[in-house]
Amino acid sequence: MNIANFTCATRLWQRHETLSKIGATPNGGVDRAALTVNDFLAQKQLCEWGESIGMTASRDRVGNLFLTLKGLDSQRAAVMSGSHLDSQPTGGKYDGVYGVLAALESCHAMVEAGFTPLSDIVVVAWMNEEGSRFAPGMMGSAYFSGQRPLEQILPVQDQRGVTVERALQHSHEYLSHISIAEPPVPAYYLEAHIEQGPELEKTHIPIGVVTGIQGKKTYRITIEGEAAHAGTSPKRERKDAVLAAVRMIADMDREFTDEHDLVKFTVGALDVTPNAPSVVPERVVFSIDLRHPDNAVLRRFGDRVEAICQSVSKPCSVQVEALSSAMSLTFSASMQKAITTVSEKLGIKTLPLLSAAGHDARYLHRICPSAMLFIPCHKGITHNEKERIAIDDAHDGAKVLVNVLAELACQRD
Amino acid sequence: MNIANFTCATRLWQRHETLSKIGATPNGGVDRAALTVNDFLAQKQLCEWGESIGMTASRDRVGNLFLTLKGLDSQRAAVMSGSHLDSQPTGGKYDGVYGVLAALESCHAMVEAGFTPLSDIVVVAWMNEEGSRFAPGMMGSAYFSGQRPLEQILPVQDQRGVTVERALQHSHEYLSHISIAEPPVPAYYLEAHIEQGPELEKTHIPIGVVTGIQGKKTYRITIEGEAAHAGTSPKRERKDAVLAAVRMIADMDREFTDEHDLVKFTVGALDVTPNAPSVVPERVVFSIDLRHPDNAVLRRFGDRVEAICQSVSKPCSVQVEALSSAMSLTFSASMQKAITTVSEKLGIKTLPLLSAAGHDARYLHRICPSAMLFIPCHKGITHNEKERIAIDDAHDGAKVLVNVLAELACQRD
Repeated sequence: MNIANFTCATRLWQRHETLSKIGATPNGGVDRAALTVNDFLAQKQLCEWGESIGMTASRDRVGNLFLTLKGLDSQRAAVMSGSHLDSQPTGGKYDGVYGVLAALESCHAMVEAGFTPLSDIVVVAWMNEEGSRFAPGMMGSAYFSGQRPLEQILPVQDQRGVTVERALQHSHEYLSHISIAEPPVPAYYLEAHIEQGPELEKTHIPIGVVTGIQGKKTYRITIEGEAAHAGTSPKRERKDAVLAAVRMIADMDREFTDEHDLVKFTVGALDVTPNAPSVVPERVVFSIDLRHPDNAVLRRFGDRVEAICQSVSKPCSVQVEALSSAMSLTFSASMQKAITTVSEKLGIKTLPLLSAAGHDARYLHRICPSAMLFIPCHKGITHNEKERIAIDDAHDGAKVLVNVLAELACQRD
Repeated sequence: MNIANFTCATRLWQRHETLSKIGATPNGGVDRAALTVNDFLAQKQLCEWGESIGMTASRDRVGNLFLTLKGLDSQRAAVMSGSHLDSQPTGGKYDGVYGVLAALESCHAMVEAGFTPLSDIVVVAWMNEEGSRFAPGMMGSAYFSGQRPLEQILPVQDQRGVTVERALQHSHEYLSHISIAEPPVPAYYLEAHIEQGPELEKTHIPIGVVTGIQGKKTYRITIEGEAAHAGTSPKRERKDAVLAAVRMIADMDREFTDEHDLVKFTVGALDVTPNAPSVVPERVVFSIDLRHPDNAVLRRFGDRVEAICQSVSKPCSVQVEALSSAMSLTFSASMQKAITTVSEKLGIKTLPLLSAAGHDARYLHRICPSAMLFIPCHKGITHNEKERIAIDDAHDGAKVLVNVLAELACQRD
């Protein structure tokens, strides 16, 4: 029996459409920040689908959502698969969602095939992968993998001063029927995701076997200047926080380059106080997202952030906070091999790829053998309302996923 | 009789304290944006004080507030004095408010002295001088002086999409008892204000006789880039709107300088979309406030704004909108002389000063002889919660103001 035959492309596609309506933006994208009502409603919808095929929903204390398909031996550690349902403010329909729905589709196919795995299979939707509301992202998987304690996560505030703790309390109004329970223990973690790069589409290959994730460091830079009247305060006496930020960003952009165009330096968020046209700005807070596949280069650039900011901050003062630091990693070789072999049997071509984006698999990799598979993403456009995938690629990914999950869930120790 | 003797320093001071509580910030400043509830409540308080001494309140269609002290011959054009009650988001207690309360104190002193002027004396609080909520500022005086039609003002939106028209409708809930009437016709306009610069304090001179206002040009720059994933999109393919803004601001800051430190170039407001740490920014909108006392220099720099922005915008696109352009101006010589002469008689020293800041007097100057007097402002700190003045200086300003107003209101044609 080939369980992949029981996956259903239209069901999988229709579920993407349904979820994309929860937080839909006028331009065809999705705005579903972590722990907002839209996020809760998407989780609720996911639970309904899972429960309709006999899966059991539960949550942990940080808001990760688990849907469990019972195996023959629930004493065994589980095989987990999933991703996230939260999005960027002007995000697309597939980033994260695909991994969750492909895992759900895999369970659905197993149920329809009458196949019961040996271990439990758990579909997971991690809390706050994107980090656009509460920084940094991958909060749920960081907690789950023991990399970040709850006490550090709960007080984190969004721009309006709402804490994660308060937002989690809010979630109970929508998800009160789902029990808070001890989270499952994973034996393996396998995450499907859209590529977020152009390689698979360019090479017409439907499945990327992810070799690892490039390193990433994030920072928050806070510049303190002094508010003054734009018409009266002389330039020499000003402490203009925007001009200080401009000098820092320009210098980092100049320095953080390499000939192969591999370094990624992004200032994605920047907030000015008081943000009034005729007031010299007294404060600027901006984010830095710095990535490079080579850990040595990433470390070298990262070590320069504070020095560059300090060197051009005068007459303002600057505080540099390192929010997160994740070195490049290599995924489980045997799991990569399993994805390749299963794909070959299904007649689906594969391409080994390094993930330039961070994913929850980064944290799971610390506690169990982990891997990822990618499907093509149109022109690599993502974190954008125009994000697009093809139904056939989505289906191919689910076919490979279900067979790899079935294999992992039936392995003898 | 010297009417100046009837001015009361503690009453004037106490009124500043009372108004500063309407929109008080935790750091001792004031947040009272134009056409907010706090603005309406401050106007209401002002009306109560005026009406308690027999003045009549009225408003015009744009929300300017007038308090009229009847003269012997109401057929004559009025003598107007005032300033504004709105503030910057983290503004001080005195910017604008002083000019309104000093004018009210002048009327109060006249009433207590039993002095009835020949012309009406009108205390005015202009709508939206600051322009931080609805740009550009000096909206009320621009309308009053016929420089900007109502149809251009009413659709202007704040950051939340609320129009001036809607905000004016809202004002009726708080100010319904004040009739909307034909505005008074001014024969003269005299505005008292804090200096917003350090000269008077440095030289220990309590009254600045303002010779004129330096020129000012304002712009809104809109940069359109493309949202992309911070981890996956290669630098060469990015359209990063923040980096484009950084290049523009750095280049303008470099070019807009002069050896005497007279040019003022300020980017006070800057907004990023979607403003998320791991998304390459797709849009940046920022403000430019550019001032110089020499009209030729101001014009030359202003003419460069568009060219500089265009030259470094690639691969983003940029739109440059000129919002306002006001050349330097010289106030009425005879009114300047009147301020100097009255001060001399009172034994108060004066200093001629150019105003670096814009004021409503800029627009009034177009329709009637106008002038301004300044009082010292601690260290020149303004548009800042730490803005501070001394009670004695405030009193000196009111003493000069009332006698000049009385003179102007009794002049034979």
